[in-house]
Formats: sequence, C-alpha cells, structure tokens
Amino acid sequence: MSVSLCKSVLITGSSRGIGLQLVKELAKSSNRPPTIIATARNPTSSTDLQELSKTYPGVHIVTLDVESQQSISSALEEVQSIVGNNGLNCLINNAAIGFSMDINAITPEAMMKTFQVNSVTPLFVTKAFLPLLQTAAAQSTGMGIHRAAVINISSILGSITCNWGEAANLKSYAYRTSKAALNMVTRCLAADLGSDGILCMSLHPGWVKTDMGGPQAPLTVEESVSGMLSVLSHLTDKDHGGFKDYRGDNLPW
Amino acid sequence: MSVSLCKSVLITGSSRGIGLQLVKELAKSSNRPPTIIATARNPTSSTDLQELSKTYPGVHIVTLDVESQQSISSALEEVQSIVGNNGLNCLINNAAIGFSMDINAITPEAMMKTFQVNSVTPLFVTKAFLPLLQTAAAQSTGMGIHRAAVINISSILGSITCNWGEAANLKSYAYRTSKAALNMVTRCLAADLGSDGILCMSLHPGWVKTDMGGPQAPLTVEESVSGMLSVLSHLTDKDHGGFKDYRGDNLPW
Ligand SMILES: NC(=O)c1ccc[n+]([C@@H]2O[C@H](COP(=O)([O-])OP(=O)(O)OC[C@H]3O[C@@H](n4cnc5c(N)ncnc54)[C@H](OP(=O)(O)O)[C@@H]3O)[C@@H](O)[C@H]2O)c1
Ligand SMILES: NC(=O)c1ccc[n+]([C@@H]2O[C@H](COP(=O)([O-])OP(=O)(O)OC[C@H]3O[C@@H](n4cnc5c(N)ncnc54)[C@H](OP(=O)(O)O)[C@@H]3O)[C@@H](O)[C@H]2O)c1
Repeated sequence: MSVSLCKSVLITGSSRGIGLQLVKELAKSSNRPPTIIATARNPTSSTDLQELSKTYPGVHIVTLDVESQQSISSALEEVQSIVGNNGLNCLINNAAIGFSMDINAITPEAMMKTFQVNSVTPLFVTKAFLPLLQTAAAQSTGMGIHRAAVINISSILGSITCNWGEAANLKSYAYRTSKAALNMVTRCLAADLGSDGILCMSLHPGWVKTDMGGPQAPLTVEESVSGMLSVLSHLTDKDHGGFKDYRGDNLPW
Repeated sequence: MSVSLCKSVLITGSSRGIGLQLVKELAKSSNRPPTIIATARNPTSSTDLQELSKTYPGVHIVTLDVESQQSISSALEEVQSIVGNNGLNCLINNAAIGFSMDINAITPEAMMKTFQVNSVTPLFVTKAFLPLLQTAAAQSTGMGIHRAAVINISSILGSITCNWGEAANLKSYAYRTSKAALNMVTRCLAADLGSDGILCMSLHPGWVKTDMGGPQAPLTVEESVSGMLSVLSHLTDKDHGGFKDYRGDNLPW
C-alpha cells in the first residue's frame, strides 16, 4: 500500500509546521495523491503555502477556520466541487493550539479554548466531511487511506497512561486534557464509522521543531512527516480505533 | 483504615443521586467523620438534603455552584471556618451532567458545556480547596483519606480502552470525552499534588439508579455508595493516580 493509492487528502492547519510539511511531502512524492487539499484559516498570509501551490499544481488551497461552522460549510462546498464523485479518501485533522500551563497558571478560559480547538473542532470537521468520506468508502473495500480514513493528529501528551513519573514533568493541563479528549473522539468515531469502511485513528507526530514544539525538539518536520506518511500508507483494519506514533509504534491511551 | 480516621469530607452535587447518598451513608455510619460538608448549588430546594442535616447534626450544608468561580470562593470561606486548623481531608468532586448524544445529535455546545461542568470545574474546585487539603496533609503521614485526598467521580464511559465492541454501543460523545478529560485532570493533579501527600484518583460508581443512570441501571445508590466508601477507606499510596470502580477493581484509561 502506498500513498499513491489514495486519490485525495485534506489537511487542516496547513499554513505552517507539520500541516504545511504534510502538504509539501505529499506534493513532491513521485507517487503523490492527485488531489491534495491544503486548508488554512488564513491561506493568503502563508507565503510558504502560496509558494507550494505555485510549485506543485494540483495542490488546492481552501480556506478553513476549523472554529467556524460557517467556514466549515463553505470549505465543504468547495472541496465537494474539487473531489466530485470520487469523494474524499483521507481527512487529516491537524490544526491545534497549545499552551504550557501548570496548576498555578491554568485558567478555565484556557481549558475551554484548547478543548474547543483541539477536541471539538476535529469532531465537527469530520461530521461535515462525512458524506465525502462515505462516497469514497463506497468505491473500495478493505480499510486504509486507499478507501477512507480520519487521522486525528494527537500527542503522547494526551496519553493518560504516559502522564506519570519523569514524563509528567511537562505540565500542561489544557493541552493534555484536550488531546486525551481527542483520543476519546477518535475512539467514538471509530466505533461509529467502522461499518462504513472509514478507518479512524490518533497519530502522534513525535516532538517536532515547529512553533508549537519549539527549537529544542529532537525531530525536524521532515523526519516527523516522512515517518507519519509511511505509517499512513501502511494502515489496515488492525489500526482502526488505535493510537500510533510517527514510527508506527502503538501508544497506550 | 476506616472512614472514622478521616476528620472531614466535602462532596459536590449532593442535592440528589450519588452525592446525596454519600452524605447519608457517611452521616449514619457509626464511625463517621466528625465533619461532613454537603454542598449543592441550590441546597434549599433539596428537601432530602435538608432532612438529612436535621436528622444528623454535624452535616454542614454549604452552597456551591461548581460552575461559578464566585460561588467557589464563598464556599471556600465558609468551609474554612467550619474545618478551621484541621483543614480538609477528603474532597469528592461528584457534581456532573450527562446527555446521551450520538453522532447525529451531538452539538459543539453540548460538548463545551459537558466539558466545562464535568472536567473543568473539578480542577478549579480542587485548586480553590488546595490550601485546606495541604493544611490537613501537613498534619499526617502516609497516603489516604486519613491524610488528604481528591476523589474525582468519573465513569467507565470515560475509559478510552473500554469504548470498543459491545461497550461502545452507548453513544455519548460529550459525556465520554468529558470523563476521559477528567481522568487526565486526575492524573495531572496526581503528578502535582503527590509530593504534598495528597492522594488523587478517579472513581467509577458503577451504573446506578439515579436521575442520570436511569431506572434500568443494575445498582441501587446504596450498593454503589457502600462499595465506594469501602474503596475510599482502604486507599493507600498504590491508588494514587489510579482509576478504580466501586468494587475496588482497577479500570484501564
Ligand atoms: N510540534 C510538536 O512537537 C507536536 C507534538 C505532538 C503533537 N503535535 C500536534 O501536531 C499538530 C500540528 O502541530 P504543529 O507543531 O505543526 O503546530 P503549529 O506549528 O503551532 O501549527 C499549528 C497549525 O494549526 C493551525 N490552526 C490553529 N487554529 C486554527 C483554526 N482555528 N483554524 C485553522 N487552523 C488553525 C495554525 O494556523 P495559523 O497559522 O492560522 O495559526 C497552524 O497551521 C497539532 O495537532 C499538534 O497538537 C505537535
Ligand atoms: N448514575 C450513574 O450510573 C453514573 C455512572 C457513572 C458515573 N456517574 C457519575 O457519578 C456522579 C453523580 O451522578 P448521579 O448519577 O448522582 O447524577 P444525578 O442524579 O444527575 O445528580 C447530579 C448532581 O450533580 C449536581 N450538579 C450538576 N451541576 C452542578 C453545578 N453546576 N453545581 C453544583 N452541583 C451540580 C446536581 O445538582 P442539582 O440537583 O442542582 O441539579 C446533582 O446533585 C457524576 O459525576 C456522574 O457522572 C454516575
């Protein structure tokens, strides 16, 4: 199985960081999906993204602010007209925000905002694009990105099991709870969409040098994204409802 | 270890259901904690709670709407004057809301509201009462409700692991994500408060006949609460950061 067997991919939050690199890596791979939909809330302000779509024709830029139901509806219409009767094979819910906030700094507002962006919006973006995923799923068999998949970009910081000992030193009440909640969303979606042939999983990109990950992160976006795309291209029914990292290792909830 | 070794317990959401029964069971036990603080957002409208405080002197009723930071502050002042220099031994975050909402019915508003009440408020109630828990913890050694403990009433529906197969038939995006998020809050608190000698854990009451559990639930509030109190009275450092049910069995995250 390779990414070439996937006809279309949509990525949220592709103005920078991991989302941007996902678009770039997909666009320049020799066996690339014919349709790459790079969404961002403010695509014109991302010169990198504009550059990419000029360099690689077939990269479609669509405006999508995941926090706005109206923006989701407009994006859906636009994407519908791009993918037509093929539907959408792979939805990557990547957009997110993150703050480090320990018990002293944390506020109810930070908890609510982070939950909204990181846990709630992936659910409602998926709900909106579900008809397109179902259209794609109906045209194939088996499970994987060749058919239909929802990939929620989660984090090992959302693993309740791993939040212990040394690993618990990274304090972030808002981000950690939002990603644990996202993992539950993944699992609820997996239970609901499996019978449609839509694979749902959580994927941890590793600790990556981006605005969010910071310069001290051990991984470059290139390393993280090439690992994640290899994981995505090998997904089968065994991965449905699961939680993996960019190397393909399973993570505990 | 028995509940008698615990000088004070505070319960949120004790107007009805499991919270009310916790107050009742504690109040009538022969080796009861001398101070039982029954909180509710609208205590005067709970005739059951009023009845209890008349029958068992030493049950203190305190107004606490967990959604209001102002109400939390007033309650803290009142509780401070009740417990004095002994501090507070055991905080039970029990108040919660729940809706069954499948993928078609779920709304962003239901997700946000349920997260606010079920995941965010236990964190900020705990933050507010932390000085009283620390005061109690400083007067004892070991770990357990004889010293200081935060008990978050969670649910097996918040177990990401258990949300699979038959068990996933109970669809509730909002409630499930809120309790998974609460479990992460428990774990973050455990990492932060362990060194103060404050035990933190998540506790599943079982499926119980209350307004929330419905009449088809297999357990009475009496069965659930007597089980939970037995679990609470046997807590040790081994339970810190854990997730148990009312029978004392460990649950996976
Ligand atoms: N970097 C790491 O070490 C790391 C580790 C674990 C998991 N992750 C996860 O990986 C994903 C990508 O992270 P990153 O490191 O690339 O973060 P990043 O560099 O901070 O980029 C975040 C992206 O999300 C977008 N975004 C935020 N809110 C949005 C909204 N309302 N609508 C549309 N887009 C929105 C941002 O768009 P704007 O440019 O418009 O702000 C940006 O494109 C996230 O899910 C993150 O939680 C990252
Ligand atoms: N019943 C079950 O089968 C079951 C199973 C698993 C877990 N649980 C958990 O067990 C706990 C108790 O549930 P229950 O079955 O007793 O539910 P319940 O009968 O619906 O009672 C809920 C309680 O929470 C209170 N509450 C809600 N919002 C509040 C607020 N803002 N401030 C203060 N109090 C508030 C309610 O007060 P009002 O009277 O003012 O509304 C009521 O006392 C919850 O955490 C629930 O998630 C229950």
